[in-house]
Amino acid sequence: MEQPIGVIDSGVGGLTVVHELMRQLPKEPLIYLGDTERCPYGPRTKEEVKQFTWEMVRFLLKKNIKMLVIACNTATAFTIEELQEKLDIPVIGVIKPGARAAIKSTENNYIGVIGTEGTVQSGAYSYALRQIKSDIEVISLACPAFVPMVEKGILDGPEAKQVVETTLVPILEHDQMDTLILGCTHYPLLKDTIQAVAGEKITVISSSEETARETSTTLDIHQIANGDDPMPPHEFYATGDLNIFIEITQKIFKDSNFGVLTIKHADLRHV
Amino acid sequence: MEQPIGVIDSGVGGLTVVHELMRQLPKEPLIYLGDTERCPYGPRTKEEVKQFTWEMVRFLLKKNIKMLVIACNTATAFTIEELQEKLDIPVIGVIKPGARAAIKSTENNYIGVIGTEGTVQSGAYSYALRQIKSDIEVISLACPAFVPMVEKGILDGPEAKQVVETTLVPILEHDQMDTLILGCTHYPLLKDTIQAVAGEKITVISSSEETARETSTTLDIHQIANGDDPMPPHEFYATGDLNIFIEITQKIFKDSNFGVLTIKHADLRHV
Repeated sequence: MEQPIGVIDSGVGGLTVVHELMRQLPKEPLIYLGDTERCPYGPRTKEEVKQFTWEMVRFLLKKNIKMLVIACNTATAFTIEELQEKLDIPVIGVIKPGARAAIKSTENNYIGVIGTEGTVQSGAYSYALRQIKSDIEVISLACPAFVPMVEKGILDGPEAKQVVETTLVPILEHDQMDTLILGCTHYPLLKDTIQAVAGEKITVISSSEETARETSTTLDIHQIANGDDPMPPHEFYATGDLNIFIEITQKIFKDSNFGVLTIKHADLRHV
Repeated sequence: MEQPIGVIDSGVGGLTVVHELMRQLPKEPLIYLGDTERCPYGPRTKEEVKQFTWEMVRFLLKKNIKMLVIACNTATAFTIEELQEKLDIPVIGVIKPGARAAIKSTENNYIGVIGTEGTVQSGAYSYALRQIKSDIEVISLACPAFVPMVEKGILDGPEAKQVVETTLVPILEHDQMDTLILGCTHYPLLKDTIQAVAGEKITVISSSEETARETSTTLDIHQIANGDDPMPPHEFYATGDLNIFIEITQKIFKDSNFGVLTIKHADLRHV
């Protein structure tokens, strides 16, 4: 099927999922929508997140998407069950793929999760992990400083390193933790810094890479993969300022050649 | 759903998938059937493999399985499309999970595949890989000495090392290969030896681990995972000699405590 896959996020973090989708599924056209104007979702109420997510979903349904990827952990935690129930197309989030990869990776069942306040308070990772494997020990930490930093385009350098180091102290005190889930799609943009601070003994799981992998599985099970398009067109939309969005997009896709990309402003008030 | 997942293989190789299923999905009861009497399938004709596989499938359908895992690359290559079309339950094989993991892993798109003659000649991995990503370079090699060695219980030591070293020479000459798929479920039993011979620069992908991971995804998409059973019962069947089967089972599961396990002989002539 040549229809695009729709990808939504609260801001630019979901672009890490898009990057992996383009790398792992290069024949699939993508439409991305980042709600950069109202980012971050982490500190918002469940009702607000649900309302904003539905606005994004309605925008993408008009673009005739064949599948929806909720590339935002907070939105996944609060809306995925409702979306899976109400939409006619397959819907996947970022939490279960990350949870499954962590279960495959861990050797001692001690798994750490870092994410936004909303994701951590929802307990969505603990629930997903223990639903599959009861004896998983979950240590989690909200890292509210990371998303605003990434949205400003600060992805490396001394400021990023210092913020990551300071923030991760409480979770790195748990010596037994052998696997750490980046439970926010913004965090893979800080992955090198996080891996360096966490040390080699900890396997860092990017929910973005894992979600792309499970998108491939989902397309396969539903038999809706695109057969033959080596350079499909992609469309990226943002609700907020396009300049900073384009700047971050260029940073994330700087070494990539994934086909024709159009970047536009999206107005969700008239959907 | 408390019904078991059915797992079939030509012999003992599929036990590596079962081991990973128990580790990654500890709440799921499993029924394993190894056609040890007629192993190996690798050198057999497509028609023979199809006939034998259908006999195993009929045996397991009588056990009321909720999902089928074809834990044999040769059987997957020759039968999966037919089984997916004709059975009412979800069916997954070992080829696509291995292919997807390799695509996620490779950084330069050079992927090696080792398997039985049947799997390699079928071109199933090349097809699966290139269907997803056209520019993957696939180097493949049949390793007919591995399965008979594993079925004899020779999993490590000097004989195993020498056979692996000698066999892999032609594929390791390809310097660019950065990822190697163990395209036979017997091979994970030689994984340490294969990784040592291949060297650290090559990521070795176990189709067994990846198939367990995708079984988890499939249960989730079809909403048939088992909610709550920390120590489910498992049944293992073999068509051939039970002594060697039990010996190899003990080697594979020596450090594991996965619940109650019953091992029995299976007669497929009267299914």
